[in-house]
Amino acid sequence: MSALTHLECALCGKHYPARQPWNLCVDCGRPLWVRYDLKEVARQFTKPELSQRPATMWRYRELLPVDAHTDIVSLGETMTPLLEAPRLAAQFGLSNLFIKDESRLPTGSFKARGMALAVTMAKSFGLSTLAAPTAGNAGGALAAYAARAGLQAWIFMPEDSPAINQKECALAGARAFAVNGLIDDCGRLVREGASAMGWFDFSTLKEPYRIEGKKTMGLELAEQCDWVLPDWIFYPTGGGTGLLGMWKAFEELAAIGWLRGSKRPRIVACQSDGCAPIVRAWDAGERFAKRFENARTIASGLRVPQAVGDFMILDALRASDGVAVAVAESEIPGWMSLGNSEEGIAVCPETAVCLGALHRLVGQGRIGREDRVVIFNTGAVHKYPEAIGATLPRIDLREPVDWEKLARRGA
Amino acid sequence: MSALTHLECALCGKHYPARQPWNLCVDCGRPLWVRYDLKEVARQFTKPELSQRPATMWRYRELLPVDAHTDIVSLGETMTPLLEAPRLAAQFGLSNLFIKDESRLPTGSFKARGMALAVTMAKSFGLSTLAAPTAGNAGGALAAYAARAGLQAWIFMPEDSPAINQKECALAGARAFAVNGLIDDCGRLVREGASAMGWFDFSTLKEPYRIEGKKTMGLELAEQCDWVLPDWIFYPTGGGTGLLGMWKAFEELAAIGWLRGSKRPRIVACQSDGCAPIVRAWDAGERFAKRFENARTIASGLRVPQAVGDFMILDALRASDGVAVAVAESEIPGWMSLGNSEEGIAVCPETAVCLGALHRLVGQGRIGREDRVVIFNTGAVHKYPEAIGATLPRIDLREPVDWEKLARRGA
Repeated sequence: MSALTHLECALCGKHYPARQPWNLCVDCGRPLWVRYDLKEVARQFTKPELSQRPATMWRYRELLPVDAHTDIVSLGETMTPLLEAPRLAAQFGLSNLFIKDESRLPTGSFKARGMALAVTMAKSFGLSTLAAPTAGNAGGALAAYAARAGLQAWIFMPEDSPAINQKECALAGARAFAVNGLIDDCGRLVREGASAMGWFDFSTLKEPYRIEGKKTMGLELAEQCDWVLPDWIFYPTGGGTGLLGMWKAFEELAAIGWLRGSKRPRIVACQSDGCAPIVRAWDAGERFAKRFENARTIASGLRVPQAVGDFMILDALRASDGVAVAVAESEIPGWMSLGNSEEGIAVCPETAVCLGALHRLVGQGRIGREDRVVIFNTGAVHKYPEAIGATLPRIDLREPVDWEKLARRGA
Repeated sequence: MSALTHLECALCGKHYPARQPWNLCVDCGRPLWVRYDLKEVARQFTKPELSQRPATMWRYRELLPVDAHTDIVSLGETMTPLLEAPRLAAQFGLSNLFIKDESRLPTGSFKARGMALAVTMAKSFGLSTLAAPTAGNAGGALAAYAARAGLQAWIFMPEDSPAINQKECALAGARAFAVNGLIDDCGRLVREGASAMGWFDFSTLKEPYRIEGKKTMGLELAEQCDWVLPDWIFYPTGGGTGLLGMWKAFEELAAIGWLRGSKRPRIVACQSDGCAPIVRAWDAGERFAKRFENARTIASGLRVPQAVGDFMILDALRASDGVAVAVAESEIPGWMSLGNSEEGIAVCPETAVCLGALHRLVGQGRIGREDRVVIFNTGAVHKYPEAIGATLPRIDLREPVDWEKLARRGA
């Protein structure tokens, strides 16, 4: 059995028994944390044993809610590389800049971690129909893992979501729909449909296990840093599950005594000024965030006008001595281009926002030259052709090639 | 130092010294094999030592040409998962069907293996400008690894290549051009430009090291199968580097005594009937393949009308007791849909062709129910939105939702 003990409301603290499906807290309507007997984990789990296991997210099973007899729903969630980025570092005047490349997971995004775990749990509970709204990559991941598990997925996404996200859902056999609204409109459809049709609501933070999957980002990062956490983490923040999962990972690792040193990273929640509800709440010193009206950004994963875990994100930022930063929407293509051309890493629009935020904080003198900085690349830029403006110069084979002219055109 | 000894023409056998750049054989114009002192490798390289190394393609360094002091150009080439595909197997009446998911490499395709190694070697030789034609994903991989290495890439691709391949090249800072022709027209431009502008010709098989990178597909597969090779390998065949690299891997593993049993897999080279030069040559019993005129297929990686390594591919098929199979172009979307919806694996159009070929051979009674069959998924379907016909049904928020009707529309 896993060391899983119970679930606990993140706002009112109410407890719920484990090993049965839950959505939000029935009293206050807020998300549930998954809790473990961390003393038991500390007794059972050792670093030497960990080092012998396959390099996948499941290697941290003592800190995951999956019982031993449960069939894991997996598409091969291999550990993602933590890549040093020396050229990019030089652009910012830094010496220790790293990118953790989450684009290398199934379906090309970090969403795979959450869905692999949440679908595994849903299947173990005997749920058959999972429904979720999505701004893009979460839909692709849900569709893929539901197909892998033999479950049915209902997916609702804004009609202006990236084309590939719409197509990958249909291709994987999900019942997917394009909606003329935003992700919270899609969330309302799921809520109504769950009630009318008996679907299980799989929305971000409305089921408690996606965050446990995302937690493995933090566990991997800690292991890859030999249990000394970096000084700064820049994280693109939409629904916030990844940020919360990572912070939870650090807390649990501290509790089992695995971290070397007491330092925790300062977390920077990065948003586009086209949709920056967390930044607005942070700047106003509030614990809850108001809906951000007329949300618009090419970073589709950040187009979340209202997050049910808003207070959890803001709490984590405060606890980490971090900050929330909004970057100008118009700057995203430039930062995306810099990340891709300096290092060849498939930096997506959401992560481009992190580069803009890093530039801002470096400019304000808040980041030391020697500070260790980690940026998460949450998805493959290949899934965002709409966000890449570049078109290639054309060569017409019917005309002789002027090589010198070509060299100037290609420059 | 690596156990690398020399290079050897695949047709006339002429030898070339290692540790300097070469293109094709200067005598007969055909590709060069990279050769090692395999007795020395057998002495130095042990399975227990291998098992302790990080799970990347570089773990097989004794069988790679990279000297110890050479800086590896890497974007984190983690081992790709070998996924059991039970639902898909049931569709074909098989019991042991596996997909090796190469879409999980940097830039979302198997091309990363070849480019990581070839760019590493090019950088070690002091080359500064690399030029290649591409039907799609090879361009994206070259652009990314050149960026990572700080080298310049010139890339020429058919103007009807997938949009994302064109955009990813530009985004990574390559000098990339769209050409109103096919990949061999682009190859001619590279040849002329290399001569006029001093670029190094990085075309498929025109530099000898991409095949060594692709070889790691076979090395990984063998290790993942605990050194007992499968009965059948289905491989989508364009330029053929992957197929050749894999076969070379099996030969070298046999030479160092690592394979358990003498059995080699039967290799099935899979093409679309829209571009099937290898299948035509195979059916005609010829050693060289004629150019396939009017090549047309949505599987862009297979749109290679003439391959400089044609005879090497045909030799390998004969040696493996394999076969070349053409699948109807019109069937590709159906097979792609089956692969994605049955298993949630991001099966690309090229790999869809393998599913069609498998169906054919199973129908002919050539594959036993218990045979172990491995299919390579060479790229992420996310890079092929043009090849996915599906569009989503739309929900208009201004109208009330009829849930029962929705259930029928989404079915």
